[in-house]
Amino acid sequence: MDNICEDDMMMIPDQKYEYLDHTADVQLHSWGDDLKEAFEQASMAMFGYMTDIEYVEMRTTAEIEAEGEDIESLLFQYMNEWLYAFSVEPFFIPRKIIVTDFDKENFRIKAIGYGEEFDISKHPQGTEVKAITYSNMQIYDNSDKHEIYLIIDI
Amino acid sequence: MDNICEDDMMMIPDQKYEYLDHTADVQLHSWGDDLKEAFEQASMAMFGYMTDIEYVEMRTTAEIEAEGEDIESLLFQYMNEWLYAFSVEPFFIPRKIIVTDFDKENFRIKAIGYGEEFDISKHPQGTEVKAITYSNMQIYDNSDKHEIYLIIDI
Repeated sequence: MDNICEDDMMMIPDQKYEYLDHTADVQLHSWGDDLKEAFEQASMAMFGYMTDIEYVEMRTTAEIEAEGEDIESLLFQYMNEWLYAFSVEPFFIPRKIIVTDFDKENFRIKAIGYGEEFDISKHPQGTEVKAITYSNMQIYDNSDKHEIYLIIDI
Repeated sequence: MDNICEDDMMMIPDQKYEYLDHTADVQLHSWGDDLKEAFEQASMAMFGYMTDIEYVEMRTTAEIEAEGEDIESLLFQYMNEWLYAFSVEPFFIPRKIIVTDFDKENFRIKAIGYGEEFDISKHPQGTEVKAITYSNMQIYDNSDKHEIYLIIDI
């Protein structure tokens, strides 16, 4: 840096810029004793981002099913089904999720959630989840490792 | 949703998930009467995200130069030079930036910033800029349009 003494240095240019869309994401990491449990945990991780799930009572259930063409798209569809269940009436939020059918050969899954209708007066509002992504998705399923890394847009 | 009355429904699984890195980005959009001015404005847009530049006094200068292999990499290097000037002592923050040499044929640029050392007691802390990205970078340079779209990680 030099000292400056130009006469025109005090002239400030017009602002010709603006800030556009602002996106963010968070990476979920879940695991389990098997891949089925890692799926259950991944979906609960998402809901845990939307609210403090300790406030959710298990008063009713919701069921989803999904299928994919490979394990990645199965996870993607599975997560989207849960996101959809939350996004439309009755705005279901689960306290726990159990995968009831998990066909890793044909990439089909069914699951049930135990929870209730989302209620802003009862459930602390967390962060809106806008989308599930394939970005850097990682699914590990071998004898000593059943883990999922999944990035969601928030 | 069905009513539920299974005996084991109150059992809550262990938490086997965690939230990993949390990234965000913002898209800068700048323009000018020529591409040189759009470059100047793009760098000021970045600094305007770091602090309220109205608090910055022009007490000294800093100079940078950069070169690229094409116009995109020139912009990338140029922005990184300014980010670097802020990131190391004396943590320079400009009130204005003037591009003094702009060689669009050979992709070389020189610029001078008028400003001062960043001082947290004087300059409102904005958002940390972590990186310049090539993501969806757009540079327009024709007779009626001199514009830049640039995404930065924050």
